[in-house]
Amino acid sequence: MITIEPIEKLTTQLSRLPGIGRKTAQRLAYHILSVPEAQAKELADAITEARENVCNCPVCGTYTDVVPCRICSDDRRDGSVICVVCDPRDVAAMEKVREFRGKYHVLHGVLSPMEGIGPNDIRIRELVERVSDGTVKEVILATNPDVEGEATASYIARLLKPMGITCTRIAHGIPIGGNLEYTDEVTLAKALEGRRLLG
Amino acid sequence: MITIEPIEKLTTQLSRLPGIGRKTAQRLAYHILSVPEAQAKELADAITEARENVCNCPVCGTYTDVVPCRICSDDRRDGSVICVVCDPRDVAAMEKVREFRGKYHVLHGVLSPMEGIGPNDIRIRELVERVSDGTVKEVILATNPDVEGEATASYIARLLKPMGITCTRIAHGIPIGGNLEYTDEVTLAKALEGRRLLG
Repeated sequence: MITIEPIEKLTTQLSRLPGIGRKTAQRLAYHILSVPEAQAKELADAITEARENVCNCPVCGTYTDVVPCRICSDDRRDGSVICVVCDPRDVAAMEKVREFRGKYHVLHGVLSPMEGIGPNDIRIRELVERVSDGTVKEVILATNPDVEGEATASYIARLLKPMGITCTRIAHGIPIGGNLEYTDEVTLAKALEGRRLLG
Repeated sequence: MITIEPIEKLTTQLSRLPGIGRKTAQRLAYHILSVPEAQAKELADAITEARENVCNCPVCGTYTDVVPCRICSDDRRDGSVICVVCDPRDVAAMEKVREFRGKYHVLHGVLSPMEGIGPNDIRIRELVERVSDGTVKEVILATNPDVEGEATASYIARLLKPMGITCTRIAHGIPIGGNLEYTDEVTLAKALEGRRLLG
């Protein structure tokens, strides 16, 4: 088998991306070789530029190309409500809804004793500092509805409640368009538990 | 919706890759932002280096980092048999088998009147030039078994036969581990047509 070193190297690098196996990586590598030189350069430059020009906002921790980020510096947004999420991607998902007009705090991870991730490994201290000046009234805990997400939300709530902050958790239940019959039991239990008075 | 220009640009570039939709591209972009700086640089560099150091072999047309390529310059390989394929990826696939000890010719495409690709748009002229010095005895046509691949194979065979070259076509039939019941009719017909005397 003839190995062409630069193709091999590119394949290896591409296969480090999530969800890209060796076979797909090879297909992408050959594709990158077959497109016009300028297009390949645009891709390489986009990677370099993203890394050079994007940083974590020092206030909320989300990815931004201006400091502080556009959300943190937007005076029309309600600084008294902070939505806590695990990942910058969650901020993007929330913003797409155009419902939330408060600000964000990105933890960059969840508490996970199994993986040795404790409170000092994610941005919890920064959150406590942020809310300690008294302007924040409510913290919405929007970590994912899995074991680690729930534990992280509870941990933060226990930390902030004594400071007089209202801590809320986003609702879990049957997704719109979903179907009772095909909903798993845990979700169904959560949906029952979170029922609200009608009319 | 807050747009972070460098992330947007990276997402757009990634979504130009085959099989990568907008959503996957965004996931990859956020991943590239989350890995260590060095890892992102390695990916960008691998793309740039592959484009800088890999070219088409002037003899056979496959991708190579040395000129002529390692296969063309290997004297232990039989120069009297040339295997004609559509794409450099096909050379890699063939080489993995370790069965073929001749040389290659990459067409970089197939004849496709629908897409306006004629004989002058793929490396057919180069093939004719290559075989015209008399050292080549057999040309194995290993284009894909689809309409365009078959048409390309026939076209080349009609061109080379008058030059005294034996033109052969790779066999089509039921793949090993395959199953008669689940084989499509066209493949089954090809398998019957290509039957060989046993014993």
